[in-house]
Amino acid sequence: MAKILSGKEVAEAMNARIREKTARLAAQGVVPKLAVIRCGEDPSDLSYERGILKRASVTGIETEQILLPASVTAEELISRIEELNADPGVHGVLLFRPLPAGLRLMEREICNHLVPEKDVDSMTDLSCAGVYEGKDLGFPPCTPSACMEILRYYGYDPAGKNAVVIGRSLVVGKPMAMMLLAANATVTVCHTKTADIKEVTSRADLIVTSAGRAGFLTGEYVRPGQTVIDVSVNWDPGKNDGRGGITGDAVFGEIEPLVDAVTPVPGGVGSVTTSVLMSHVAEAAEKFPAAKD
Amino acid sequence: MAKILSGKEVAEAMNARIREKTARLAAQGVVPKLAVIRCGEDPSDLSYERGILKRASVTGIETEQILLPASVTAEELISRIEELNADPGVHGVLLFRPLPAGLRLMEREICNHLVPEKDVDSMTDLSCAGVYEGKDLGFPPCTPSACMEILRYYGYDPAGKNAVVIGRSLVVGKPMAMMLLAANATVTVCHTKTADIKEVTSRADLIVTSAGRAGFLTGEYVRPGQTVIDVSVNWDPGKNDGRGGITGDAVFGEIEPLVDAVTPVPGGVGSVTTSVLMSHVAEAAEKFPAAKD
Repeated sequence: MAKILSGKEVAEAMNARIREKTARLAAQGVVPKLAVIRCGEDPSDLSYERGILKRASVTGIETEQILLPASVTAEELISRIEELNADPGVHGVLLFRPLPAGLRLMEREICNHLVPEKDVDSMTDLSCAGVYEGKDLGFPPCTPSACMEILRYYGYDPAGKNAVVIGRSLVVGKPMAMMLLAANATVTVCHTKTADIKEVTSRADLIVTSAGRAGFLTGEYVRPGQTVIDVSVNWDPGKNDGRGGITGDAVFGEIEPLVDAVTPVPGGVGSVTTSVLMSHVAEAAEKFPAAKD
Repeated sequence: MAKILSGKEVAEAMNARIREKTARLAAQGVVPKLAVIRCGEDPSDLSYERGILKRASVTGIETEQILLPASVTAEELISRIEELNADPGVHGVLLFRPLPAGLRLMEREICNHLVPEKDVDSMTDLSCAGVYEGKDLGFPPCTPSACMEILRYYGYDPAGKNAVVIGRSLVVGKPMAMMLLAANATVTVCHTKTADIKEVTSRADLIVTSAGRAGFLTGEYVRPGQTVIDVSVNWDPGKNDGRGGITGDAVFGEIEPLVDAVTPVPGGVGSVTTSVLMSHVAEAAEKFPAAKD
């Protein structure tokens, strides 16, 4: 019987801390503000946007929605980003990605127009350099930060532990490895070319899985004493009596009886990421309050 | 009896390839040029500089020495870097670090004034982002690149192998981990806070050690079948009948009879790094030939 690491609980504690910070800033005349740029009407963007607007409102963060057509040109989008860079009342900028098909090839170039001080969702090269170098430059991606918040909340210190990260993407695997290294874990990164992931995970103290494959992490991959953070959000059409639903990499029914602690999906890492985003906006406003007028 | 992975042999093969490239560029009117900035007269800078000038001359690369007093101000140094950025005849810039004591606190800021296209020694945040993101942005540090060149030359493919990197610095450990990941190895990073490095290395196929401690890697850390790359350059006062000499992390006499292959120190990784630097200059000149006049 594993301890269930509830993301909701972590998010609530974070939200309370963010509210304290935004109230303190408001008393100084600074209202932290997040600008959200959406190009087109992608359903998953709309869903994420709703979550962001709601979480912002409960944490005392103002939002500004910038809605552009899916046919927006790179020049137009870049000029909007430059305007937000120059706007002292905006502390953070989030741009929904992937961008519409016509802009896909220029995505990285477009993203890099944002100044790192406002890059609360880690979309620039300089934010990447920040998490890699372990220095205060831009912001780290929200998902691995959410994993660290969960570990911190539940009192898990990665120092000296064997941590295994499954996946090597720039949004989860690599930054997760960097953060765990910074927290003094011994870190192993596994991926699709790893000869025997099972053999690697069985030796771990901490497993962070972002394989993105439902049913991937079976009971054979784990052992008693481990903590499992399941980052993946996969669609399982058979869930909820055939209506479908989201699920992680872990076969929860097999993992849960074996390990010490595990995050559920839903209700785990995903519940925390939007609070991390808000904490970045509050932090940006604290560091660069700029407009007090 | 291990195969000795001679760095000199790798460097010679690289030098021949670089000469071919620089000859081809010269035929197109482009002479690859490296600007070397030295502040003060630090003996280790002078020694490294001699090596660079010599390696440049044998590989068809022009050099320009910029010698500044140790008392140079940050503004003066930055303005020299900006001049080199703007100079279409200069393809790469190397600045000896650490900078003199008075500039130490501003070192990173100074370094970041160099454009990534000319950052052949990986001193900017954007070069860091390049190696971390695995994209063509700036250049990776020369030392881990030298390790990859050695593996390539001797036909060692890291794909699917368990690679262990000892050390997590930005000049060796972290970029080495990123390069081995890009080469599809399963990568573990160990460091001073690792509970039991011996236990980790004993499971590895490939060990890259940059602990920086003479005598650290004893026979107990290795087993038959492994390849060991010894990156460290430590001073051993007892070597050469008490005259002193450089030595790696490995206790060579213990390692060599056990493992499959090992790099010596001296004559291993260190012999290759300056050739990597030259290959970066040639590559920069190939990508951005600029001045043909």
